[in-house]
Amino acid sequence: MIISQLETPALILDLDIFAENLQAMDSLLKGSKAKLRPHYKSHKCTYIAHRQIEAGAKGITCAKLGEAEDLAQSGIKDILIANQIVQKSKIVRLAQLAKTCKLTVCVDNADNIADLSRMASEAGSVIYCLVEFDIGMKRCGVSDFETFYRLAAKIDSAKNLVFEGIQAYAGHLSHETDDLFRAAEVEKLEIRVLDLKKYLLERKLPVREISGGSTGTVQQKAQNGVYTEIQAGSYIFMDQTYRGLDTVFKNGLFLVSTVISTHPDRFILDAGIKSCSPDQGMPGVMKYPDCEIAMNEEHAVVRANSHNAVLGESVLLVPGHCCSTINLYDQIYLVRGKEVVDRIKVTSRGKNV
Amino acid sequence: MIISQLETPALILDLDIFAENLQAMDSLLKGSKAKLRPHYKSHKCTYIAHRQIEAGAKGITCAKLGEAEDLAQSGIKDILIANQIVQKSKIVRLAQLAKTCKLTVCVDNADNIADLSRMASEAGSVIYCLVEFDIGMKRCGVSDFETFYRLAAKIDSAKNLVFEGIQAYAGHLSHETDDLFRAAEVEKLEIRVLDLKKYLLERKLPVREISGGSTGTVQQKAQNGVYTEIQAGSYIFMDQTYRGLDTVFKNGLFLVSTVISTHPDRFILDAGIKSCSPDQGMPGVMKYPDCEIAMNEEHAVVRANSHNAVLGESVLLVPGHCCSTINLYDQIYLVRGKEVVDRIKVTSRGKNV
Repeated sequence: MIISQLETPALILDLDIFAENLQAMDSLLKGSKAKLRPHYKSHKCTYIAHRQIEAGAKGITCAKLGEAEDLAQSGIKDILIANQIVQKSKIVRLAQLAKTCKLTVCVDNADNIADLSRMASEAGSVIYCLVEFDIGMKRCGVSDFETFYRLAAKIDSAKNLVFEGIQAYAGHLSHETDDLFRAAEVEKLEIRVLDLKKYLLERKLPVREISGGSTGTVQQKAQNGVYTEIQAGSYIFMDQTYRGLDTVFKNGLFLVSTVISTHPDRFILDAGIKSCSPDQGMPGVMKYPDCEIAMNEEHAVVRANSHNAVLGESVLLVPGHCCSTINLYDQIYLVRGKEVVDRIKVTSRGKNV
Repeated sequence: MIISQLETPALILDLDIFAENLQAMDSLLKGSKAKLRPHYKSHKCTYIAHRQIEAGAKGITCAKLGEAEDLAQSGIKDILIANQIVQKSKIVRLAQLAKTCKLTVCVDNADNIADLSRMASEAGSVIYCLVEFDIGMKRCGVSDFETFYRLAAKIDSAKNLVFEGIQAYAGHLSHETDDLFRAAEVEKLEIRVLDLKKYLLERKLPVREISGGSTGTVQQKAQNGVYTEIQAGSYIFMDQTYRGLDTVFKNGLFLVSTVISTHPDRFILDAGIKSCSPDQGMPGVMKYPDCEIAMNEEHAVVRANSHNAVLGESVLLVPGHCCSTINLYDQIYLVRGKEVVDRIKVTSRGKNV
């Protein structure tokens, strides 16, 4: 089967570009103190997680407990949930899961630490903890050294918990396209993270891991050597949101759509917001990079004056945001050139619990 | 189990409000020439489609062939795909499906009509066709009477096809909150549709169905009596996008989330854009209608100064857009008061092919 024979909308992954992106990340991190712990949220496929481990990743980052369960069941041995797990019934699941792999979770609250310790003790497992340090996202995490220290010390003295280090994620810099500004901001926050590390060490709390980073900041973080783990996710696929970024990574994930209606001033594709998440903007249209595109639920309206679209024509899109688009699909077709060679399951599609 | 014991994020449907909305729609259409053909895209649950049929709907509207297949397999006998089906392999599926139910599809292209006729003939089935009339959306559909007539006549003379009437959907008016403006616009386009009907009748092509309409326009369409079918979808759930509309329908679909991090100036919920589609804006927060809310992939950041959130607290959200949010979930919990009484499958979640 060739790509244009797929029933659409369909997601395809170009295997050659996928291999190039894996290789490019390995090259970036070669010789650096930073190891790769790629983020599962961008692909949600255990198949891809295993290819990342084979290509040198130390373990996998994910956002949800359900994702961590899928990863562990597929044989991944070192998993970080870069998020807070608070509901009691979920902590029971977490403590059970920690029997099957090295499991790390983020915390920013003393009551949560008490719950984690109690339930890990009951399960007879050990849960590793990163305290989340807010370095500008204003989301989860604590922002002052003293509160951080109190939480870290509480973990350190709690049964069945291990204080592992600092989670410090600057999501607001991931898509910053001004290289100088981004570099300056990364440097500022790394100085603050190093100060925190020193503060903790002076109080006899050594920091084993500093975890964070993204596709947009990995190059600098690899050079600076402050972070020990890089949580980049999008680099394997890339997407339209990263189009302004000067990067070694290439678009490898595409959405195949079909022209279902033609007009003198526009043509209509069979892919809308239920097939291509619009949360970070519209997809790119491969053949017509300068066209205008708008989407409804199951339609995209394309205005490309230079083009006379043909009914039934196959049109490739670059998703606006790979992470949220992947979450709409049960499967991804693997392609080499124009050939469809296999398909993989989006194992954790919809695993938001 | 009660609602606050659900692992979150979770979608719940209030059964009492669901019943009220079904009843309210039945009352609106009582005595009208217009019959209800509710849109499946808003719920994608065959369970709900059957409740709509029991409450008086003549059949179901859907957007995708995969949805139509799910509906037919669940026993729905009268299905309209309010969309163009163009890929050859899909038309083969369509022609097969037409053996199992009364199946109607939209068309706006002569080549497509030829394909539909040929494959219905080969399958030995009959496919009913609405020609799509563009009344202002500038998406699919033809906008002049003569082209419409030529397509309708081609269907009328084609083997194994039946010309059923006019699809005329004004999606751009669904959320119009200015009652007078909306009413004037609906009236204008209904006059144009009536003129088209007359034009076709003069050429010996009687129009059996005029199909379209939405939750935002159903009341007026029921009174005017021009449309024979109303494709309203959101009325059973409602959502935050409809908040400005003066309507008899009530919010019955909610997203249960949990506070996973607390701060003096904000609290963080475990529901982001992968749990609550942002395509038509942010969700409403039930307890704090005037708060500010922003979302990342798996987080919502809420600023509600009046409120001191407690870690683990359960917070109900009204989805920004019910149709796209439903498409992120495999199941909906049914609740009565605070009790969870059952759960249903989102049968056609992700059925975009």
